[in-house]
Amino acid sequence: MTTSTQLAPVKWENDALVLLDQTRLPVETIYLNLTTSEQVWGSIRRLEVRGAPAIGMAAAYGLYLGIRGSEASNYDEFWQELNQQADYLGSSRPTAVNLFWALDRIKARVEKESGASIAELKAAVLDEALAIQKEDAEVCRTIGENLLTLLHDGMGILTHCNPGALATAAYGTATAPFYLAKERGWNLKVYADETRPVLQGARLTAFELQQAGIDVTLICDNMAAMVMSQGKVEAVIVGTDRVAANGDVANKIGTYGVAVLAKAHGIPFYVAAPLSSVDLDTPTGADIPIEERPAEEITHGLGKQVAPDDIKVYNPAFDVTPAKYITAIVTETGIFKPEEIGNSKK
Amino acid sequence: MTTSTQLAPVKWENDALVLLDQTRLPVETIYLNLTTSEQVWGSIRRLEVRGAPAIGMAAAYGLYLGIRGSEASNYDEFWQELNQQADYLGSSRPTAVNLFWALDRIKARVEKESGASIAELKAAVLDEALAIQKEDAEVCRTIGENLLTLLHDGMGILTHCNPGALATAAYGTATAPFYLAKERGWNLKVYADETRPVLQGARLTAFELQQAGIDVTLICDNMAAMVMSQGKVEAVIVGTDRVAANGDVANKIGTYGVAVLAKAHGIPFYVAAPLSSVDLDTPTGADIPIEERPAEEITHGLGKQVAPDDIKVYNPAFDVTPAKYITAIVTETGIFKPEEIGNSKK
Repeated sequence: MTTSTQLAPVKWENDALVLLDQTRLPVETIYLNLTTSEQVWGSIRRLEVRGAPAIGMAAAYGLYLGIRGSEASNYDEFWQELNQQADYLGSSRPTAVNLFWALDRIKARVEKESGASIAELKAAVLDEALAIQKEDAEVCRTIGENLLTLLHDGMGILTHCNPGALATAAYGTATAPFYLAKERGWNLKVYADETRPVLQGARLTAFELQQAGIDVTLICDNMAAMVMSQGKVEAVIVGTDRVAANGDVANKIGTYGVAVLAKAHGIPFYVAAPLSSVDLDTPTGADIPIEERPAEEITHGLGKQVAPDDIKVYNPAFDVTPAKYITAIVTETGIFKPEEIGNSKK
Repeated sequence: MTTSTQLAPVKWENDALVLLDQTRLPVETIYLNLTTSEQVWGSIRRLEVRGAPAIGMAAAYGLYLGIRGSEASNYDEFWQELNQQADYLGSSRPTAVNLFWALDRIKARVEKESGASIAELKAAVLDEALAIQKEDAEVCRTIGENLLTLLHDGMGILTHCNPGALATAAYGTATAPFYLAKERGWNLKVYADETRPVLQGARLTAFELQQAGIDVTLICDNMAAMVMSQGKVEAVIVGTDRVAANGDVANKIGTYGVAVLAKAHGIPFYVAAPLSSVDLDTPTGADIPIEERPAEEITHGLGKQVAPDDIKVYNPAFDVTPAKYITAIVTETGIFKPEEIGNSKK
C-alpha cells in the first residue's frame, strides 16, 4: 500500500497497530506497538497520531483491538460492546470529524452483517478498518497521478504545511506526486516552507520527504518570494482543509500569501483536494470560519520565549485563497478549474 | 534627544556608558553601566549592543572611556594611545563598518585639534561621541517627519525586522514615524512581522513599540497577506541595508515578499533610508551580494531542534526588492521615487 521509501504513520502488522510517534519527530523515529483500545485512545489524545485521515484509521484499528477479545454470546451483546468502545475512542479527540466518520462506518458495516457469527463480525471490523486505510491510500495515489500530469521531470516545486504521507494512509495529498515522481525516477526539487507558527513544514514535510530520498530544501515562509524570483520554483502545490463551492480554498495560514506570490511570478498554483474536503454546501470562502489560536504558539512556540510578555498577537490558524489565484484544484476524480469544482462530485 | 517613551539602547549618563543589554530582550530589560573600554569591547563582541548606528555610538563612547584616564604628557603620546584604543575597539566586531566610521571620525577630530591641551583633547573625544549620537537621532527624526507626511491618524501600518530605535540613537528609521505619531497623539496600529529566522520583529520591534505605548500587534511573516486582505494595513514601512542607484533596495529576508503582497493589495510600500545607506556606486540590486547564513538559525533557532538532522536548508539573510515595487524611498533629505534616489544626495 505504501512505497518502500515512505514513512507509514499507521500500519496494521502482526495483529497490532503500529503508529509512528509524531510527537518525537523530527528528532526521533519511534514506532509504537499498540494492542489495546486504551493505548490507541492515549495515542490519539497525546497527538502521537495526527492528520484527519490518519486519526480515523487509528481509531478504526483501535475499535478492532477493543472488541477482538469480546466474549459476547450474541449480536446484541456484541453491538453493545462495539458501541461502548466506539464512544470511548470518540472521546479521545472529540473535535476530529474523521474519527467519528471512521467509527460510524465500522458500526454500519457490523449492522449490515448482523446475521453473522461473532467471529465473523470481529473479522468484519478488521476488514473495514483495512478498507478505510486502503481507500485513503488509493484516493491519495489517484490525486498524485492527476497532479503528475501537470508536472515534469526536473521541476522545482514549493509546498506549504504538511499535506503529507504522515497525515494519511500513504502518499499524502499535495505530496503524492513527489512520491510517485520518485517511483518513476524523476528528480523533482521540492522547497518546503517551514510553516510558522507550528512548523509542520520543518518538522514533518521536510522530514518525510528527506526520509523518502526526495530532494527537499527547507526555507522560512518569508523566503518563498525570493526562491520564486530566482526561478527555482515552477509550480506550487498545497493541500486544503475545505474547498468552497465557488472554488475558494481554506488551508493553513500562509497559503494565501504563497498564492499571491505565485501569481505575481507567473507560477501555477495547484490545490490537492480529496473529495471529502470539497464542501459544496459552503458557498464561498467568506463562509468558512477561521479559527484563531493562542498567542503562545507564536510567542513561546518551541522552546523559549521569543516575544515580550503580554504582547498583542494575531494568530489565525487558516486563511482563504480566493479562486482567482488558483490554477487548478486536483481531486481523485480529476483536474478542475476552481470555478468548476462543482463538477468534481458529479 | 529621545522621547520619554522610547527605549534608549545607548546613553551617556553620569560619566558612564549605559547600554541596554539586547541579548536579554524581550524577557528582561537590563541596563549595563560601562566605565572601561574593555567592558565596551566585550559588550559589542557579545552583541549586547547591535544595529550599525548603535554599535558606532557605543565604540565612540568606548574610545573616550579608554583615553579619559590617559597620562600622556604631549600630543604624540596621546595620539598613540588614542590609536591603540581605537584599534582595540575595532577588533570587537571587525565586520561592522559603522564601528570604524565612528572611530575614524573621532580620530579626525583629535587630529584637527592637535594644538589643544590633553584635557581639551579628551573633552573633544567625548564631544565628538555625543555629536555622533545627536546627529544620528536627528537623521532618524527627520526621516520620521518626512514619512509622517505620507501617513495619517488611525492608519494600520505593517513593518518587518527591526528598523527601530534599538538599532539607532533614537526613533529608528522605519519606526521613527510611529514614535513621532505617538508624540502628536495619533493612534497608529502597527503590525510587526516576527521576521524569521532570527525574529528581530518579535524580539525587538514588538518590544520597543510596546514599551513606548504604541499599539503593536505581532504576527508571523506568513500572516501579512491575510491582514492586508482584511484591510488592516494601509501602508508598509521598512528599513534598508543598502539602496542601489536604480532604486532597488536590499533589506532583511522577507522584505521582497511583503513588497509584492503590498502591490497586489494596492498598499503603498515605503523604505526608510538614511543617506548613509544610499550607495550610488552600486548600479542595481543584482550587484548587492546576498549573505547566506548557517542552517542552524532555521533548524535550531527557537530553543530546540525543529527540523530533521542534515536537512538541506536555504537561508539567505537579505533579499532585494526591485524599484518597481517601491512607492517611495524616504531619506533625511526628502521623499524620492526609487528611480530618482540619485537626487537624495544632491
